[in-house]
Amino acid sequence: MKKGDETRARMVDATARLLTTQGYHGTGLGQVLAEARAPKGSLYFHFPGGKEELAAEAVRRAAAEWREAVLAVVATAPNPLRAIRAVCELLASRLEASGFQDGCPVATIALEASATSDLICEATTEAYRTWQQLIEDRLRALGLPEARAARLATTVLAAVEGGLVLAKASRSGEPLRRVGAELEVLLGAMAPR
Amino acid sequence: MKKGDETRARMVDATARLLTTQGYHGTGLGQVLAEARAPKGSLYFHFPGGKEELAAEAVRRAAAEWREAVLAVVATAPNPLRAIRAVCELLASRLEASGFQDGCPVATIALEASATSDLICEATTEAYRTWQQLIEDRLRALGLPEARAARLATTVLAAVEGGLVLAKASRSGEPLRRVGAELEVLLGAMAPR
Repeated sequence: MKKGDETRARMVDATARLLTTQGYHGTGLGQVLAEARAPKGSLYFHFPGGKEELAAEAVRRAAAEWREAVLAVVATAPNPLRAIRAVCELLASRLEASGFQDGCPVATIALEASATSDLICEATTEAYRTWQQLIEDRLRALGLPEARAARLATTVLAAVEGGLVLAKASRSGEPLRRVGAELEVLLGAMAPR
Repeated sequence: MKKGDETRARMVDATARLLTTQGYHGTGLGQVLAEARAPKGSLYFHFPGGKEELAAEAVRRAAAEWREAVLAVVATAPNPLRAIRAVCELLASRLEASGFQDGCPVATIALEASATSDLICEATTEAYRTWQQLIEDRLRALGLPEARAARLATTVLAAVEGGLVLAKASRSGEPLRRVGAELEVLLGAMAPR
């Protein structure tokens, strides 16, 4: 990787971390540059669209990373329902280990900025679409018809994201674990086999 | 109401609105004072703890208002499952009517600030506890045992809050409506009668 590309990647990674812990408005560009050990001029060189473009890129990067992390959990789980529960457990443990600073790299910025920024809205829409598809594919593999699998996948994704909101709100992994356990029961009762 | 109390109430209302649309870090105290038509000195007179205390109070006020709004929906719905769907429809319509600026007054600040502020964490914990209890009571009235009703209530609340995140992320009411329709089916299959 060229030096410029390395700097760019460090800026994107730093932004993704900061968006996760403190959101879009709470993240200053000075802080991004300091954490990424990047010179001031590099921001507009790599991201002519400034903070908005950098944040959209960080959302995309973080969404791709979480997709890989979730696929790794799915690969070791005995079935898709157990995998959903394991993902909730992974999120709960990460939250606890970080003193509830960690969380979802997409949710906070989506609530703060997707209504006003087209660039950010595109990135958050795509991030959730990717995760929804991942769940939908597995629900269809369980034998659920297409339309139902899509609706259920949205609901599962929403419950996990919302569980994360409740967990951060109360500084407790318990809501996420409840969601994981309950989704396993609810989906187990729904799946045709 | 005394004039000072009126000023205080306007400040809390303005803060609740601003937290909903732009979050905690995106909301400046100057903006709150301007929207509330309040003199600068009134902030620390009414809220010695500053922005943190004001925001915690706004979360409590907004949570109580939403509790009333949800109870009004529940009162006119034919049953609790239909009520959950109607609440999702209400949230989706409000989001659409506001150009996706509106949303949950608690979620954004919970993601941004509950990990670092004890005052805000107390307020967001209490807000979600109140809403969860409202759902739990109705699930128990359907005949579900206590522990199951509690776990399901957390999951329902999480799915609705997460549906709101997905809706804001993609500027579409569709995820919330999917969650409402799917929760009605899932809970209908679970309830003993």
